[in-house]
Amino acid sequence: MAHHRGPTKGKPAPELPGTFTLGEILRCPPGPVDVERDFDPAATPHFPGKGKDDAPVEYARMQPVLDGLQERLYAHSFTHPDSAQRVLLVLQGMDTSGKGGVIRHAIGMINPQGVSIHAFKAPTAEELRHDFLWRVRRALPGPGQIGIFDRSHYEDVLIGRVDHLAAPDEIEARYDRINAFEREVVAGGARVIKCFLNVSKDAQKARLAARLAPGGVKYWKYNPSDLASRAKWDDYMAAYGVVLERCNQDEAPWYVIPADRKWYRNWAVARLLAEALAGMNLTWPPADFDVEAERARVAQS
Amino acid sequence: MAHHRGPTKGKPAPELPGTFTLGEILRCPPGPVDVERDFDPAATPHFPGKGKDDAPVEYARMQPVLDGLQERLYAHSFTHPDSAQRVLLVLQGMDTSGKGGVIRHAIGMINPQGVSIHAFKAPTAEELRHDFLWRVRRALPGPGQIGIFDRSHYEDVLIGRVDHLAAPDEIEARYDRINAFEREVVAGGARVIKCFLNVSKDAQKARLAARLAPGGVKYWKYNPSDLASRAKWDDYMAAYGVVLERCNQDEAPWYVIPADRKWYRNWAVARLLAEALAGMNLTWPPADFDVEAERARVAQS
Repeated sequence: MAHHRGPTKGKPAPELPGTFTLGEILRCPPGPVDVERDFDPAATPHFPGKGKDDAPVEYARMQPVLDGLQERLYAHSFTHPDSAQRVLLVLQGMDTSGKGGVIRHAIGMINPQGVSIHAFKAPTAEELRHDFLWRVRRALPGPGQIGIFDRSHYEDVLIGRVDHLAAPDEIEARYDRINAFEREVVAGGARVIKCFLNVSKDAQKARLAARLAPGGVKYWKYNPSDLASRAKWDDYMAAYGVVLERCNQDEAPWYVIPADRKWYRNWAVARLLAEALAGMNLTWPPADFDVEAERARVAQS
Repeated sequence: MAHHRGPTKGKPAPELPGTFTLGEILRCPPGPVDVERDFDPAATPHFPGKGKDDAPVEYARMQPVLDGLQERLYAHSFTHPDSAQRVLLVLQGMDTSGKGGVIRHAIGMINPQGVSIHAFKAPTAEELRHDFLWRVRRALPGPGQIGIFDRSHYEDVLIGRVDHLAAPDEIEARYDRINAFEREVVAGGARVIKCFLNVSKDAQKARLAARLAPGGVKYWKYNPSDLASRAKWDDYMAAYGVVLERCNQDEAPWYVIPADRKWYRNWAVARLLAEALAGMNLTWPPADFDVEAERARVAQS
């Protein structure tokens, strides 16, 4: 009767266009990192089209792939509540690097039912009374979900370090604690993908100016305090360098996303996410009921 | 100096195509309701195209309108944390009526950053120890958000009534309590839009059969217990009739969405949401900083 239990036909998951693995190209290499020396924010490695004009076509090719893979992930958790599989995508970057743009354009390709987004702001009074990872654990995605962190626990070693928000030995201890935390998340069934959206200082300036353009459509995105962070650009780049060196274990790798070209940045994050999902070898879950019998019941209903 | 504070140019919000108001057509009228007598699940009122083949074009026209309106809502809450404006979209309907399809295709048009989705399942042990509205309050959308309820507090007077999950006088009391709750939510700054996805019994049968089609791609959507609800179809229609009559106040109206044609259903919910947002007269928030001064600061940074 095994064939009555309704195994699926093993229809393969949608295939990613192209034979390259973007994750291999954008993965931050091990060792000391000097962000501005080591990475080109304007690069566009492996983008299949010629440039910006081809982006809509490439997005349209990516969308069904990402959508199909995500649906398999969701379906599995739906039918197997004990399934632990899930994805955590961490987005970090300086102001204007495009965390919001990635969510809009790359995550927007996916069925919103399978996505949970958490934006980490300055900690509340309650959050400050707990360990820095407390609020992060509470925001982890559930089974079958793709969780997006718009900023993350890395703020606690970025602004935390730059603005001396904790004692130096506390900051120092956090790198190892983050690694242990992320190993725990991975052991719990999650794929962890961390993207540093690497925007250049010049591109940031242009984007800040664009937010102040006449008409006021983007005034709401502008915050005068952004210039305070910009003034500490070198400190931030140094802090990112430490993060990329010390929290880059294979279980929870960092990818450095060239972010001066928005169309590339969005495509690249979507591609990385699709590659991670494809690597999970997701199949449609088999039926846990007698398919023939249920067909007969429906026909008679 | 007032002009320096950077008022926006009052660029009008994107306009909805067509001059009709779908909400007037699909609004459930007051008085007693006999669902199957009063509403045609296969109707397609005001759909601008000829039918299914035109749906992609109509979705493509709707998307930027919905997206543009949502961004204004989001922007306002972003710059004015005291703003209370938000939207709550309640989706109810029998199995296969397409709550998930609406989320995928209509809500999928919107920037996921501005959306919060909550699926209400059978209450947990903890939830059962509280009043039926306890878990609902906790799931309400924050300011600037469009919250989607995939099922809702109405389950407590639908399956609750049909399967006698509470005493008759408790069920009876819930209609007024729901009305009071929804008035409170509206007073708190939310627009409440409730959509009953009205699928016919025949269409449900075809959709259940499709979930069992060879290949198994949709097995995961099939649950043998769905037939138990289907066997109580008349009881459910009666329970929906009571809901549509007793919980249909102007502050939180019910819309009856013909749901036999998926392409119409998704378009109609997107349109209703866009009409609600358009009715909020959202504008880009003015700058609360000196725009000229900030331009100069950016230029020098």
